Amino acid sequence: MKWLSGVPVCEEILNGIKEGLSGPLKRAPCLVFLLVGDHGPSKSYVSMKAKACERVGIISRVITLDQEVSYIVLKDLITDLNNDETVDGIIIQMPLPKGLEKLPLMIDPSKDVDGFTPKNMGKLVLEDFTGFIPCTPQGIFYLLRYYNLSCDNKHVVIMGRSHIVGKPLVNLLSSRINGANATVTCVHSGTKDVKSITKMADILIVAIGQAELIDASYVKKGACVIDVGINRIDGKIVGDCKADSLQQTVSYLSPVPGGVGPMTIACLLLNTYLSYKEKFKTIGSSKLVFEDHLLLRN
Amino acid sequence: MKWLSGVPVCEEILNGIKEGLSGPLKRAPCLVFLLVGDHGPSKSYVSMKAKACERVGIISRVITLDQEVSYIVLKDLITDLNNDETVDGIIIQMPLPKGLEKLPLMIDPSKDVDGFTPKNMGKLVLEDFTGFIPCTPQGIFYLLRYYNLSCDNKHVVIMGRSHIVGKPLVNLLSSRINGANATVTCVHSGTKDVKSITKMADILIVAIGQAELIDASYVKKGACVIDVGINRIDGKIVGDCKADSLQQTVSYLSPVPGGVGPMTIACLLLNTYLSYKEKFKTIGSSKLVFEDHLLLRN
Repeated sequence: MKWLSGVPVCEEILNGIKEGLSGPLKRAPCLVFLLVGDHGPSKSYVSMKAKACERVGIISRVITLDQEVSYIVLKDLITDLNNDETVDGIIIQMPLPKGLEKLPLMIDPSKDVDGFTPKNMGKLVLEDFTGFIPCTPQGIFYLLRYYNLSCDNKHVVIMGRSHIVGKPLVNLLSSRINGANATVTCVHSGTKDVKSITKMADILIVAIGQAELIDASYVKKGACVIDVGINRIDGKIVGDCKADSLQQTVSYLSPVPGGVGPMTIACLLLNTYLSYKEKFKTIGSSKLVFEDHLLLRN
Repeated sequence: MKWLSGVPVCEEILNGIKEGLSGPLKRAPCLVFLLVGDHGPSKSYVSMKAKACERVGIISRVITLDQEVSYIVLKDLITDLNNDETVDGIIIQMPLPKGLEKLPLMIDPSKDVDGFTPKNMGKLVLEDFTGFIPCTPQGIFYLLRYYNLSCDNKHVVIMGRSHIVGKPLVNLLSSRINGANATVTCVHSGTKDVKSITKMADILIVAIGQAELIDASYVKKGACVIDVGINRIDGKIVGDCKADSLQQTVSYLSPVPGGVGPMTIACLLLNTYLSYKEKFKTIGSSKLVFEDHLLLRN
């Protein structure tokens, strides 16, 4: 069995961005993080992402707000950031306090580097790759591509239908672009006899948020399994897959940590870079298209 | 085998709209059709839709433009219609001449009653039912619902990944709403061994645009088959399914014509009615939500 480490892929993307930003620039790209309340894991995610920004030459601005911040204050803040010409990307770290969940929808689609606004999501469905593709699905696509695991003509089964991973992934992998073109099935809490379907998968992508649930009984011999889960158990991070059990059966498995996680961060920076590049078209090609993404350029 | 006629469902929707518009109104709803060039089938589609409008009390305006109309002229026209407060819906009849294909994207999402703009498509993915759902997918959902064929816990296989039918249908039927919640697989030109997948389907939806291709060898005994195809052969309209062959095997089949076709028209009027209702909130409930659609109301 081969491990599909995200580390070398992430390196390649980050180095590509760094190189793209190495010339004389009018200004550096800027990514703004909004962090509401005092949520430990959120703080550590943001600090990891900010560190990666620094490495490639993207300025990160972390705005920390009190748990009790009002809707109006946050809304005005987002409007200001939408209008700020020096800001290329805005992300609001989840989870958000009750009543504020819809705020990310107010981010201008041209700065929505998480790709969560309806306009960007719809462009993905319509195979218009001038928008931002959500980071985790995009990262999974690049991870597979790096290891020459094309989805073309394959049956891909996606476990989970979240708005962040499962749903955009269904649309991305069933699109006509090179490396996708898969026959995709999405299984979820409403699926009867899950295993009969997951066992058909050439590529199984698990994004269910349940620690080590998926063992060899879910997979076909020789399959490729991508583990999207990040679960904390006794201070240790584990995936949705029981790696020990899968190792004898599958051909490829992405590790947790070190698989999809770094890819998500890399794609966040890539989206920010593309947002910036769209404003300063003198850098590289003039059009922001999917085929123009670093790894897809070839 | 039971035929799933769209006619009584269409009647129910049209009567519901008519009733909803029966009170004293400030003005009638208005749907504008843009028709470019002299394309026979397009003209007959538009005239069918316009006739249905008249029946329920929606004013239809058909704007016919020369095949040679310029991009700028059409763009300005769409802008005017977007800004015209008396217009509730705008649809551009396909096909469009070369160079004009992207014009439908300029329709204001709040008047995009075809549901083809990225914003409406993205809302569907994100299960935000305040947007417009494309008419054919919506019509198929209502058709199944009318005959008490819930997709819940079922395996639905969709043949075809068009932006108008297949792709939005994948997202609609895998959503969490009542009557959907299906495990969905989409097969297409890139699928290896199509029959092995279609034979798993509890509900098979065929939208491939190939006359009478699907016979009994594609289906499981007792399945439900929805035929979305409208193909013209020697002046006769036939579906994508070979009905004769399927009749001995399946439990339910939608006829062509008279199945999905009338549903598409009904849902176009429904979307127009909902657009109108959103402006004049005094009619019925104040929020435009999916659960509020006529048939979902119970």
